[in-house]
Amino acid sequence: MDYDRALAAAIDRLHEEGRYRTFIDIERRKGQFPNAVWKKPDGTEQDITVWCGNDYLGMGQHPVVLGAMHDALDATGAGSGGTRNISGTTVYHKALEGELADLHGKEAALVFTSAYIANDATLSTLPRLFPGLIIYSDELNHASMIEGIRRNGGAKRIFRHNDLAHLRELLEADDPAAPKLIAFESVYSMDGDFGPIEALVELAEEFGALTYLDEVHAVGMYGPRGGGVSEQLGIAHRVDIINGTLGKAFGVMGGYIAASARMCDAVRSYAPGFIFTTSIPPAVAAGAAASVRHLKTDQALRDLQQERAAVLKLRLKGLGLPIIDHGSHIVPVIVGDPVHTKKISDMLLSEFGIYVQPINFPTVPRGTERLRFTPSPVHDPKMMDALVHAMDALWSHCALNRAELAG
Amino acid sequence: MDYDRALAAAIDRLHEEGRYRTFIDIERRKGQFPNAVWKKPDGTEQDITVWCGNDYLGMGQHPVVLGAMHDALDATGAGSGGTRNISGTTVYHKALEGELADLHGKEAALVFTSAYIANDATLSTLPRLFPGLIIYSDELNHASMIEGIRRNGGAKRIFRHNDLAHLRELLEADDPAAPKLIAFESVYSMDGDFGPIEALVELAEEFGALTYLDEVHAVGMYGPRGGGVSEQLGIAHRVDIINGTLGKAFGVMGGYIAASARMCDAVRSYAPGFIFTTSIPPAVAAGAAASVRHLKTDQALRDLQQERAAVLKLRLKGLGLPIIDHGSHIVPVIVGDPVHTKKISDMLLSEFGIYVQPINFPTVPRGTERLRFTPSPVHDPKMMDALVHAMDALWSHCALNRAELAG
Ligand SMILES: Cc1ncc(COP(=O)(O)O)c(C=O)c1O
Ligand SMILES: Cc1ncc(COP(=O)(O)O)c(C=O)c1O
Repeated sequence: MDYDRALAAAIDRLHEEGRYRTFIDIERRKGQFPNAVWKKPDGTEQDITVWCGNDYLGMGQHPVVLGAMHDALDATGAGSGGTRNISGTTVYHKALEGELADLHGKEAALVFTSAYIANDATLSTLPRLFPGLIIYSDELNHASMIEGIRRNGGAKRIFRHNDLAHLRELLEADDPAAPKLIAFESVYSMDGDFGPIEALVELAEEFGALTYLDEVHAVGMYGPRGGGVSEQLGIAHRVDIINGTLGKAFGVMGGYIAASARMCDAVRSYAPGFIFTTSIPPAVAAGAAASVRHLKTDQALRDLQQERAAVLKLRLKGLGLPIIDHGSHIVPVIVGDPVHTKKISDMLLSEFGIYVQPINFPTVPRGTERLRFTPSPVHDPKMMDALVHAMDALWSHCALNRAELAG
Repeated sequence: MDYDRALAAAIDRLHEEGRYRTFIDIERRKGQFPNAVWKKPDGTEQDITVWCGNDYLGMGQHPVVLGAMHDALDATGAGSGGTRNISGTTVYHKALEGELADLHGKEAALVFTSAYIANDATLSTLPRLFPGLIIYSDELNHASMIEGIRRNGGAKRIFRHNDLAHLRELLEADDPAAPKLIAFESVYSMDGDFGPIEALVELAEEFGALTYLDEVHAVGMYGPRGGGVSEQLGIAHRVDIINGTLGKAFGVMGGYIAASARMCDAVRSYAPGFIFTTSIPPAVAAGAAASVRHLKTDQALRDLQQERAAVLKLRLKGLGLPIIDHGSHIVPVIVGDPVHTKKISDMLLSEFGIYVQPINFPTVPRGTERLRFTPSPVHDPKMMDALVHAMDALWSHCALNRAELAG
């Protein structure tokens, strides 16, 4: 067995398809978000503007977040020094879980090292808690949900994206007595479209199923206190398990579920992905808690984000670019080919200092390769001008279709 | 389906077996490790000494680590704002990976959000890179390795703990042409015993298998530069993939693999657990890199840890307590019953201010429930006196056997 050749072949496949990923080394400048410095492979540096980050509200440079992190570092040091069970539960973790339970109006919350592992660990543990559980999963659910659902080989049904009729069909085909769970997202991050949360919850209630809602791309940004789309719709109390991240709009790192006290206690007690890993650093927990707390009242920041997104969409549409617009804060521009997408991204970066990473398969379906812009309160009108002009110039230069594939 | 009742039943099972886990809320005091404050459920506080942490060298309060974290917070903010591919690769991540590759004498390293996910993601991705891969796994491997190996239903063989003859038998029974990987640890954290790394590597070479070594409980602490037991034995170059954590001896958070450039590139490109999650905060990467760098030269700290561990073992043995001693830095005292273990732990905490969490199934096999002490350079002789006296008193009080089950 020639292991090295097998590795080379696996990597070559990506090059051949034009979807080999090159990471861009950057350093954002605190106080000057979204400006950053790009450190090129040859060691030289270039000033850039980041247009593809998921620090959606710029909270990663907010003084309340940074202050809380500095304070925790000074008070308690760097890491937690243990798993949650073995010396790694600190007052910072408990305070954060309190903020999150309150955010979603739930009895309890459970913090994981990431929303990825929160999804994976929770969804793979639920079949142990409810033997015979059938999980109904939206086909566009995030990789972390898919991994969790697949992990233990439990029963699963995949329903077409946002297709309530298909889901109903699947539910009707199964034993009414079987335990069931419907898993979906509130904002699908690559198209920026919304899940039909209310209808899904109603369907779940009709069929006696639990609901599992990934609000990773909504927490902090939707709802009067940043509780996500389920809060905006006034429906959070009817969702059994809400999943969120602390690494996007909250600007730090970590993930969680919010649910009943019993649900959290059972997942806490049975999920290997929660139990057998060092807990997040107290300073990270402190920063995240400060961010969650702050965003419970800073509606102006949410409004500004929505306004910026609306303006960018309007302007790109004005140029006839093929953008997808479902009314969320995410602005995808479809290119439809991995090589073209990479090329435009490269030119934006090197010629215009605009950083937007190409998004390829498997993150999005083949043929829908795209640039995905994430305008935020820290992207000012001048930056937007620069972006719009650059896109206009490049679209002409590359003779790309306008309004093709627009949704 | 009564979901709530199922949850209650799952939790009740743990109570009945005496292994329901109660987390202790603590706050360590920077500069005063291992001293901490225990916040009791009733809101009152008590000063305690932490004896069960995995911040094995006290690096979590080291000025070089904290300084690096403060600086990164000031320069670049809180979170990374993205996945590694989409704006979340920073100069801090690259620098950390450089330190780690150097630490293990490998071409490359790849940082994950934890060593748990590094194990899980890497071991579940290798069968995709080497179709038909058979994984040979030590029966006492950590949960994260087990989860990774089980995940995609690839071929696996479990060999008895450290049993080379059994492993050889299994290797001989399989197709010589099949790709193979042997997965094991250097220090098994619950018994503190060592894997026979050299013999395992030789067996792997004989059978043309790759080797995967979890050095989570060894990095920073063994080897002249803290490269783990594989460095101590001068054998790191013969191990294909080394896994380590940044959350224990390095005192911060995160995990990694170190391997050939091709291996890291392939895992980077194919592992969902690496790709689809927000990268660690730059400040965490900066703190971890500073810690790794520092421990490449601070042999005195490693020596002091070993000395403290040796002294504690000697003194507990002197009392006739059933400790396990394999010559590592970990000091397990076997109680052998979950209820007794919890009771002793509770009394140590409330009566003596000594915090050592009870370790129960599934972390250790039933009947081997234990207290697991982790003496470190920050545990001074006075603290050790207090611990030894408390253990002596409690062992008498509880009429527990002495020297029973000692290994
Ligand atoms: C042997 C072993 N491997 C991996 C891990 C996971 O490391 P981390 O805490 O970085 O997730 C642990 C413990 O946490 C461990 O004991
Ligand atoms: C829908 C969705 N769920 C979960 C995650 C994982 O979140 P985290 O970055 O906290 O691991 C992501 C992206 O990272 C996501 O897009």
